[in-house]
Amino acid sequence: MKRIYMDHAGTTPVRKEVVEAMLPYFTEKFGNASTVYSYGREARKAVEEAREKVAALIGADPKEVYFTSGGTEADNWALRGIAYANKEKGNHIITTAIEHHAVLHTCEDLEKKGFKVTYLPVDKYGRVRVEDVINAINDKTILISIMHANNEIGTIEPIEEIGQVLKNLDRKIYFHTDAVQTVGKIPVDVNKLNVDLLSISSHKIYGPKGVGALYIKKGTKIQSFMTGGGQEFGKRAGTENVSGIVGFGKAAELIASELEEQQKKLSYLRDKLIKGIMENISDVILNGHPVDRLPHNVNLCFKYIEGESLLLNLDLKGICASSGSACTSGSLEPSHVLLAIGLPHEIAHGSLRLTLGRDNTEEEIDYVVDAIKEIVEKLRQMSPLYNQKK
Amino acid sequence: MKRIYMDHAGTTPVRKEVVEAMLPYFTEKFGNASTVYSYGREARKAVEEAREKVAALIGADPKEVYFTSGGTEADNWALRGIAYANKEKGNHIITTAIEHHAVLHTCEDLEKKGFKVTYLPVDKYGRVRVEDVINAINDKTILISIMHANNEIGTIEPIEEIGQVLKNLDRKIYFHTDAVQTVGKIPVDVNKLNVDLLSISSHKIYGPKGVGALYIKKGTKIQSFMTGGGQEFGKRAGTENVSGIVGFGKAAELIASELEEQQKKLSYLRDKLIKGIMENISDVILNGHPVDRLPHNVNLCFKYIEGESLLLNLDLKGICASSGSACTSGSLEPSHVLLAIGLPHEIAHGSLRLTLGRDNTEEEIDYVVDAIKEIVEKLRQMSPLYNQKK
Ligand SMILES: Cc1ncc(COP(=O)(O)O)c(C=O)c1O
Ligand SMILES: Cc1ncc(COP(=O)(O)O)c(C=O)c1O
Repeated sequence: MKRIYMDHAGTTPVRKEVVEAMLPYFTEKFGNASTVYSYGREARKAVEEAREKVAALIGADPKEVYFTSGGTEADNWALRGIAYANKEKGNHIITTAIEHHAVLHTCEDLEKKGFKVTYLPVDKYGRVRVEDVINAINDKTILISIMHANNEIGTIEPIEEIGQVLKNLDRKIYFHTDAVQTVGKIPVDVNKLNVDLLSISSHKIYGPKGVGALYIKKGTKIQSFMTGGGQEFGKRAGTENVSGIVGFGKAAELIASELEEQQKKLSYLRDKLIKGIMENISDVILNGHPVDRLPHNVNLCFKYIEGESLLLNLDLKGICASSGSACTSGSLEPSHVLLAIGLPHEIAHGSLRLTLGRDNTEEEIDYVVDAIKEIVEKLRQMSPLYNQKK
Repeated sequence: MKRIYMDHAGTTPVRKEVVEAMLPYFTEKFGNASTVYSYGREARKAVEEAREKVAALIGADPKEVYFTSGGTEADNWALRGIAYANKEKGNHIITTAIEHHAVLHTCEDLEKKGFKVTYLPVDKYGRVRVEDVINAINDKTILISIMHANNEIGTIEPIEEIGQVLKNLDRKIYFHTDAVQTVGKIPVDVNKLNVDLLSISSHKIYGPKGVGALYIKKGTKIQSFMTGGGQEFGKRAGTENVSGIVGFGKAAELIASELEEQQKKLSYLRDKLIKGIMENISDVILNGHPVDRLPHNVNLCFKYIEGESLLLNLDLKGICASSGSACTSGSLEPSHVLLAIGLPHEIAHGSLRLTLGRDNTEEEIDYVVDAIKEIVEKLRQMSPLYNQKK
């Protein structure tokens, strides 16, 4: 059976060119990048070239890019590192209710360690209000962490506006954005966004899993998260994952070169998918912002049915999609994001996320629309709620 | 020029079979292991099979093996996770002066966060005394972390004896060992060692960099180090590095099957190398324990010369070795391990570590002995200290 993959916000296949770039660093060029002899030097060179490519993708200086084991580590580092390094200045952190768990659960842990966290609400589209951010600031605030775009509903947050306001404050409050979902999908420039810290993950941009990066603006006061050897300019210990970093760099280079074209293609397919579903199926809600949304994200609630049944039935037809985020799929709790935009529990349970990628085609969109229509009809026939309504 | 690699304690080449096992998980089988559809299930299955292989290598139950981004993360997690989870019981940690920086620098950071750490001395061979460990215990002690074997001088520590004593105490003190250098080199069995936590790194056993594991005995009270999604039984967040984990599993399986044979081969080559050097060059000191040492480790001090010059000259002859540990090579400080075994600064500066691996041959040993002899003689001719002595 042909498989149609529409869960690119969950993860992406590694591109052939990326695998090829990685291969030598497993075998002939396997050196430890922190050693002085020839094997070490060729590994070091490869790591620094990758750093330049990742830096270029986000408009940063290579010296501001620190490789990590993924987006989760980048988020943990940003929050814990800033919190501990600046705790004499204050213990207050501002974030939103719709962050990824890598931010939310880290904030909860910091609360146990004496920090205070404000979780801002969002509007019905999942947007945080700039004035809410400003109003939440008090004289203990040391860090604001707001995601660039939400991984479930695709809503893009007003990071640039918030960054602008923070820049003009009379004291420094560090500003972190989790850009795991935006890098490689829409233009991301750390200077335009006015952020001090930004998280990226390789496996969302057709690079390998297990590698990511944290952008840390020059002059930022931050503690190490992983302590040990002097790798990553003394800030992130652990033997460099050379092949992973090389793959990440290659993926960054490739995606930078096709960003505009992909953005156009993906939003076209996205709109076709939304239109196809909305026109063919009743009682469907589009979650997230109608316009300010990621070009590849479609998130829908189908009333009267469970997202999980929908997913499993799609899987039987070879279609890979998601309900909630990857890490909560399989849990019975509805998504914290859908609850935060005001959906009642029973509707939040019927959500489906389809996220498109560079290999998806118009024919696949047609096939998926038909499949969803058929499955939703079948499931609704069996739904007591739906039959009651009729 | 042919290169001779003798820095296997620094890192190892990834075996062909390992790369082959990994490849499908970059491309056809690229799924996120935490999703429910077909791609996700095949990734999940691969991760669990790898977990079984790593568990088998150390005599653990697979449910006690948690994948990390490497040995450094495993060490950070063990120390920070136990410290924070048990801080109502006490704030005292015992370790040794010769641990890897992943342990030492983490302990130093914990000291800044209110914990007290005892750094035990070692004897001239680099062994900690069991009675010193016992005497250091006070009623605030919650954790003891002692490496299984030292990465620089190869000395094997009396972990089993210490584990035995701790087991018979009337209260629980968690026992962690950094086994990054022993796993795959000598038999390692978590039950025989009586440890609660044990760190492993994939790239030291011919697996990929950027992946490792922490063994956590059932019932251990530990906090998460990386917070976010519910991966790794809810204990270690972050999208699973599927290909890395698969490679690690394959490497573990392969090394388990040839452990005895390699142990024999490596100690034979090691002894030949030591004998060759000792018999042909004067004023050489063998660092580490003469008998209780890793089968592949040779660590020597050549009086009157600098380790760094020796290294660079070996590199010109295509020989890759190390001076100090990978992460401090290039720094001007002499190794904390060599200082801890009582060497004076000027002698510690002349150290050379040669660590053998499965591809090294007897001919390479002969070639290296000759090369070192020639280089040492040349460097000593230029050394004012040496000429003074004559
Ligand atoms: C917004 C966001 N932040 C963080 C992460 C975590 O990144 P990683 O999967 O690399 O750990 C993800 C992906 O799951 C994400 O979508
Ligand atoms: C004893 C010891 N512990 C920890 C580490 C760190 O492991 P990794 O290189 O996987 O971060 C190393 C290797 O450098 C080591 O030799």
